[in-house]
Amino acid sequence: MACGRLYGLGLGPGDPELVTLKALSRLRAAPVVAYPAPVGGKSFARSIAAHWIVPSQREIRIEFPMQPGPPPAAIYDAAAARLAAELDAGHDVAFLCQGDPLFYGSFAPILARLAPRYPATIVPGVSSLAACAAAAGTALVQRDETVTVIPATLDEGELHRRLAAAETAAVIKIGRHFAKLHRVLAALGLLDGAVYVERASQGDQRVAMLAEIDPATVPYFATALVRRGGFAR
Amino acid sequence: MACGRLYGLGLGPGDPELVTLKALSRLRAAPVVAYPAPVGGKSFARSIAAHWIVPSQREIRIEFPMQPGPPPAAIYDAAAARLAAELDAGHDVAFLCQGDPLFYGSFAPILARLAPRYPATIVPGVSSLAACAAAAGTALVQRDETVTVIPATLDEGELHRRLAAAETAAVIKIGRHFAKLHRVLAALGLLDGAVYVERASQGDQRVAMLAEIDPATVPYFATALVRRGGFAR
Repeated sequence: MACGRLYGLGLGPGDPELVTLKALSRLRAAPVVAYPAPVGGKSFARSIAAHWIVPSQREIRIEFPMQPGPPPAAIYDAAAARLAAELDAGHDVAFLCQGDPLFYGSFAPILARLAPRYPATIVPGVSSLAACAAAAGTALVQRDETVTVIPATLDEGELHRRLAAAETAAVIKIGRHFAKLHRVLAALGLLDGAVYVERASQGDQRVAMLAEIDPATVPYFATALVRRGGFAR
Repeated sequence: MACGRLYGLGLGPGDPELVTLKALSRLRAAPVVAYPAPVGGKSFARSIAAHWIVPSQREIRIEFPMQPGPPPAAIYDAAAARLAAELDAGHDVAFLCQGDPLFYGSFAPILARLAPRYPATIVPGVSSLAACAAAAGTALVQRDETVTVIPATLDEGELHRRLAAAETAAVIKIGRHFAKLHRVLAALGLLDGAVYVERASQGDQRVAMLAEIDPATVPYFATALVRRGGFAR
């Protein structure tokens, strides 16, 4: 029996209308649907696709602990083993990814464990960065400009060094790292003009100047768009 | 009479299946469809949407000269005036963009001219970078890594400086800048491991190691994924 195919489906930044025709088609055709979720919590990736998942599809929920730092390799090993069992049985598996499957996120480590053995197809998705620029109504980059994507999870020295070297930057995964990011931007003279976007494309999307944000309210899915001299709005 | 609304529709990297549900819905509803095209040549953005454009939609073709460097401001001024006439007449206008509307490309300068006067909605799209990573089957970035997007159109010194400072880089718009990029990568010891992706997601997509590429064959829509130590494949 032929083994199944692994699909990494990019579902975009949150608005179900930002799912692509291809991701929707492959999602509907898959007998097995897998997705990451926080332990005991709601899967963001599944919520984007919820409208299209039907009871005849088997669901595999892969739980990740809510702790700082990268998840232990054992979680990816166990997830890959569960998916491999389905693939060995000849079932295609659609792995649901918020944003794009290969731009951060939990799919790449699973793909790395399975790709040598099983056929795989990646369906790229709309990244949260594109949704942030759309929400802010400003071009992220134009002409021959460069842009650097920087996780706020870096330590303060490295965050400072990366932001100092960047022309335009998108700082992602802010959450509890907001105070650190605020200090670094202030030290670099980049605070004024920095645009803050939270939950881009979702119903509770928020866009504001970063300098006006209350640190206590910042979720993980918040991004800062930073540019010397500010953005054209 | 109320004026029309301007839509910037991101149509993704080329595969029509990578159009989002939202872009398709807004495209179908628009009485006027505008798109960039090279003088005398085929519009890439229009080709992605061609299947869905109907004769009752009026088309506005905005021609850009095929010359190095940024197009003259007068072209954007004239394009904005043509779209403004439609918007003043109460017609919604869908501006078609390959990739994402605010990630390089010709929409941002037009938006900047029209947004102060007309309501505008940006529909983000799948970027060519996501399609390149999917084509190469490798994560662009993971965990707390940073990635810098660098146009190959920069002069050699600046290209060297930006690549030297980057952790992972995506070098876009390669075309006739291939030889320069090759020299810079070689000088930085980054040539081995650099992945080359051409026309990602399109029928004639090509993925290869950059070191094996014949410079004479490189189109504008070619990208290099560059990473110290190479990519996991």
